[in-house]
Amino acid sequence: MNKYDNAEKKASKSERQEQHKAELEPIQDFHAEPNMTVSRFIDKVRHVGFQSVHLGKAVDIIKRMKQDNAKIFLTFTSNMGSSGMRGLFAQLFSLRFVDIAITTVGAIEEDIIKTKEKFYVGSFDANDLELRKQGINRIGNIFVKDTSYVKFEEIIQELLEDIYQEKKKLTPSQLVYEIGKRLQDESSFVYQAAKNNIPIYCPAITDGSLGYQLMLFKDKHPDFELDVIDDFKKLILESSPREKKGVIILGGGVAKHHALIANLINEGMDYAVYITTAREYSGSLSGATTREALSWGKLRSENAVTVIGEASILFPLIMTKVLNDLGFV
Amino acid sequence: MNKYDNAEKKASKSERQEQHKAELEPIQDFHAEPNMTVSRFIDKVRHVGFQSVHLGKAVDIIKRMKQDNAKIFLTFTSNMGSSGMRGLFAQLFSLRFVDIAITTVGAIEEDIIKTKEKFYVGSFDANDLELRKQGINRIGNIFVKDTSYVKFEEIIQELLEDIYQEKKKLTPSQLVYEIGKRLQDESSFVYQAAKNNIPIYCPAITDGSLGYQLMLFKDKHPDFELDVIDDFKKLILESSPREKKGVIILGGGVAKHHALIANLINEGMDYAVYITTAREYSGSLSGATTREALSWGKLRSENAVTVIGEASILFPLIMTKVLNDLGFV
Amino acid sequence: MNKYDNAEKKASKSERQEQHKAELEPIQDFHAEPNMTVSRFIDKVRHVGFQSVHLGKAVDIIKRMKQDNAKIFLTFTSNMGSSGMRGLFAQLFSLRFVDIAITTVGAIEEDIIKTKEKFYVGSFDANDLELRKQGINRIGNIFVKDTSYVKFEEIIQELLEDIYQEKKKLTPSQLVYEIGKRLQDESSFVYQAAKNNIPIYCPAITDGSLGYQLMLFKDKHPDFELDVIDDFKKLILESSPREKKGVIILGGGVAKHHALIANLINEGMDYAVYITTAREYSGSLSGATTREALSWGKLRSENAVTVIGEASILFPLIMTKVLNDLGFV
Amino acid sequence: MNKYDNAEKKASKSERQEQHKAELEPIQDFHAEPNMTVSRFIDKVRHVGFQSVHLGKAVDIIKRMKQDNAKIFLTFTSNMGSSGMRGLFAQLFSLRFVDIAITTVGAIEEDIIKTKEKFYVGSFDANDLELRKQGINRIGNIFVKDTSYVKFEEIIQELLEDIYQEKKKLTPSQLVYEIGKRLQDESSFVYQAAKNNIPIYCPAITDGSLGYQLMLFKDKHPDFELDVIDDFKKLILESSPREKKGVIILGGGVAKHHALIANLINEGMDYAVYITTAREYSGSLSGATTREALSWGKLRSENAVTVIGEASILFPLIMTKVLNDLGFV
Repeated sequence: MNKYDNAEKKASKSERQEQHKAELEPIQDFHAEPNMTVSRFIDKVRHVGFQSVHLGKAVDIIKRMKQDNAKIFLTFTSNMGSSGMRGLFAQLFSLRFVDIAITTVGAIEEDIIKTKEKFYVGSFDANDLELRKQGINRIGNIFVKDTSYVKFEEIIQELLEDIYQEKKKLTPSQLVYEIGKRLQDESSFVYQAAKNNIPIYCPAITDGSLGYQLMLFKDKHPDFELDVIDDFKKLILESSPREKKGVIILGGGVAKHHALIANLINEGMDYAVYITTAREYSGSLSGATTREALSWGKLRSENAVTVIGEASILFPLIMTKVLNDLGFV
Repeated sequence: MNKYDNAEKKASKSERQEQHKAELEPIQDFHAEPNMTVSRFIDKVRHVGFQSVHLGKAVDIIKRMKQDNAKIFLTFTSNMGSSGMRGLFAQLFSLRFVDIAITTVGAIEEDIIKTKEKFYVGSFDANDLELRKQGINRIGNIFVKDTSYVKFEEIIQELLEDIYQEKKKLTPSQLVYEIGKRLQDESSFVYQAAKNNIPIYCPAITDGSLGYQLMLFKDKHPDFELDVIDDFKKLILESSPREKKGVIILGGGVAKHHALIANLINEGMDYAVYITTAREYSGSLSGATTREALSWGKLRSENAVTVIGEASILFPLIMTKVLNDLGFV
Repeated sequence: MNKYDNAEKKASKSERQEQHKAELEPIQDFHAEPNMTVSRFIDKVRHVGFQSVHLGKAVDIIKRMKQDNAKIFLTFTSNMGSSGMRGLFAQLFSLRFVDIAITTVGAIEEDIIKTKEKFYVGSFDANDLELRKQGINRIGNIFVKDTSYVKFEEIIQELLEDIYQEKKKLTPSQLVYEIGKRLQDESSFVYQAAKNNIPIYCPAITDGSLGYQLMLFKDKHPDFELDVIDDFKKLILESSPREKKGVIILGGGVAKHHALIANLINEGMDYAVYITTAREYSGSLSGATTREALSWGKLRSENAVTVIGEASILFPLIMTKVLNDLGFV
Repeated sequence: MNKYDNAEKKASKSERQEQHKAELEPIQDFHAEPNMTVSRFIDKVRHVGFQSVHLGKAVDIIKRMKQDNAKIFLTFTSNMGSSGMRGLFAQLFSLRFVDIAITTVGAIEEDIIKTKEKFYVGSFDANDLELRKQGINRIGNIFVKDTSYVKFEEIIQELLEDIYQEKKKLTPSQLVYEIGKRLQDESSFVYQAAKNNIPIYCPAITDGSLGYQLMLFKDKHPDFELDVIDDFKKLILESSPREKKGVIILGGGVAKHHALIANLINEGMDYAVYITTAREYSGSLSGATTREALSWGKLRSENAVTVIGEASILFPLIMTKVLNDLGFV
């Protein structure tokens, strides 16, 4: 037994936080192959080093959390609803791959808009004053017409009136559920969530155009109420300390934090995958890694990885393999 | 008139979004000076190039928004309340430099804890499993004892009981105000805000330990209610389209978005300074620049700048100069 | 013709730098499919928005530069040679997909080491003092044994002796060629480059362990010389202003800048794809986008895109599709 | 002795890499003060948390390395020479605060240009096609006229002719020294380095406009030679294993790596301060932290810190305090 054999053992011991293998794996050369599937691609590229390694671990951990029947929380930020990831969210809900979703209200709004309107591929470098004159709003490199938001206002007031006839007091997640039920559009993730009984929590329900519409609606119907404390209780009761729990967290913000706090109260996550562009050096929760979660007891396991990168590429890549390998597609 | 004179004119025209000067300024060499004040430092370093230029513009714009009597919105993320920036927030409220604050609930919680407990300088590279064993929670490189959060639970339940005796239904910003009034600690920004009638909005009031405490409290007092729609209306009515409005946005998240949405409804900001580590390439609202805000009409002016960098250094630096130059300190 | 039709035209005009399409494309929902190939995956995901759009454009532009018979420059940083991307570089050279490579000396060194030694998948969070004791060097999450570098010293001195018998004065790229010829390992990109007559430029040839070995070698053989000025001339003459030229730039540093300067002297690139994690706000060349290259005349075309993200995932993803679609694999 | 006292001890033990204090320091609230000096500002802000803590440590370590008479290496990237940090570099050389400088050739070129020409404050959002038409080159938000580079070509050919009359063979650092001697401009850091016998190493001497000028010059004078191997030896001999050595590394690239390799060969740095915007997740040397340097033996001490942020603000801030506190200004 040489010096390095010792090194391997000790190094892997000192790193148990990130690594749960007894032996170090070699870095392997990647070669492109004809008609390579996404599944095989990830099996190969994960030995390249750097974030490709984390990509591979993310696939493993998501597969493991599903096979272990963990309650799965999926969180995402508003911009991801603006993007075509909306389709993947709808698919995950229709497949009942996840159990609980948490997001910000912009994602809900834009999912609703898309049941009637198109968004467009634009450019980060567009002249924003020009866009303003043309009635186009920019979300990174996605363009949305002013008139699409006008459409939203029409749709949502009708929906609120209809819901109000049934219930005058709801929690935010119940409101999203009631909206979803009424959308009748298979491409909508809000609809698919309602159809498949997957609750969508939205801890800052007024933080968007919906806030303004709710305000206008309540001016007409002062007895309309949203109970945020009851929604928090509902979220806490979605899982329990005894259950296995996993999270898939895309980006940061309150959607991320809400999943972590719910899991902390229930004694910690068993599986965690974060995909984010935020970095930890500013001390923000958005940039906090799965490692930091250990100190809090938010995480009670080594089945965790943070993949640094942009979700619009990485999440479809990961889920194409996971759904394929587990036979969901 | 030579070719370059033309270039200057045309270039400055094509850049009116970011630049409002008729002539290009030269880059100037920086030299350290004895006993240099922060104010003089920024006057000099702003000609260095790159983000130092934005630092100088941020100072100009904040001074201008104050001198123009704009309604000033200050937003910050939870981690900034965990840090010693808490003191600067308290100072800004006691000086009535800002008019409206928006944050996430973690900042409120940790301000309350700090009225009784200390936080510690730790390390980003700490062993989180070790910390867990020692009962220490990590926020970047800030360490907080488990027992400090236990203390929070005691304080908050007492405060809630006391508030409940007066009011059974509040908006989140009213709750924060009532908490603030009772803290009686000059170092607390929640207290200083209440004392100086500066509302603190918290669009995701349940997104933290407070959420759990509210839940427990409501189990005992089912008629206790928080009205988030009314709080949104209250926020919208803080300003109006006719008024001048400015924002100082530290970091991203719902705190940022809430300020933008409130200003959008009131026909746009006249002054905007963003300080952030988030970048725009992922299309997130957190990374969206002041330029993107133009397309939406969130911003109706050229008095805007995004400074890329970490607020724990940049915001104290900027405000030390602004408060000094305007005679607030 | 409605208002929006106008908007489309004007917006697309004002963005010709980034976009060369007459009409805005809609954002499209992504859905995972069974046995999805990488090629189909990219065809679908490119309509999602954000960096996925840039991913799709990168594929288009690389295909176009190849089909247009452009001289193709590939640049990469040292860490990419440390990773399993080495295999893809070797493949691209053996397929003669690229014409000129530029890198830093660490990539050459580690390619040579790998003809004899293995690198290992480690962890970013490893305890570096522990690793030091175990004789392991860390490159991000790649581990390399001290003894592997000792091996390098033996190999390189033999190679230098052998080359010196033939030539006492070389340019750095000639030295890399002579080393490559002697490696006789199909998995080595330095070997494949030599075998296929693809020059590898290394503008900072002493910036690594090789620098020290060259120094020791020259102590014994004072008439051994490396001519860096001649190598620059050789690089400039690789292409000409009349030729079509394309670059694929992974990461930043001198490898990136050297390709840009060579193309600038030859009146600009016709095709450019940058893949990088560096951002432009610091004014560094590493973070400079393809847009900035326009001002210099480094780029003379709209066939350019910057994809923000980590190359260990993105470059294999892109090239798997490009090589497949063009029939190279 | 309570549980937390134990925690403090163990936590600080487990973090010895980053922290060398026996007790955890409390986070302290920051307040702006009238006429606050930079020195007092940093004394206060360093207790705020996050990067402000690293800022404070950077000051301590640079003071310590100077007081300990360490050989001090300063490295910086090309863009920093383009910026007004040039003045601070000149000041540090004229004060003989540092002993050895390493940079890329763009910094040398632009320092030379600035002896005759002005650079201008521009905008990151400028229209680059417009700039191209106007003959303006963009470096982030710094604008440089085409004619300034034409001026460089005139100056450098004259300088090369003059140097060539004295010496036909030089190392790159000798060439920079000979250029510096001839500039006769107190504001130039290349001049101040020569005047004060501080060598400037430039491991990729051809990687810029100078490369082209050297090529043209050598076409006329084929016996003109630059010896890069001898320059590496000269660098290695600048210090020794027995000496104390410190580095101040601004940004990444070959300038950073060259300082590290030189120190590695001499058994490691005793003091290290990195200021960078690059992050470690891509495994690049540019993003590698001082912690990673431990595994290699590049660093042999705990006197090391990485400050994440943009050098155009942070480095002037740090050095204003260091020079002031040590009585250099």
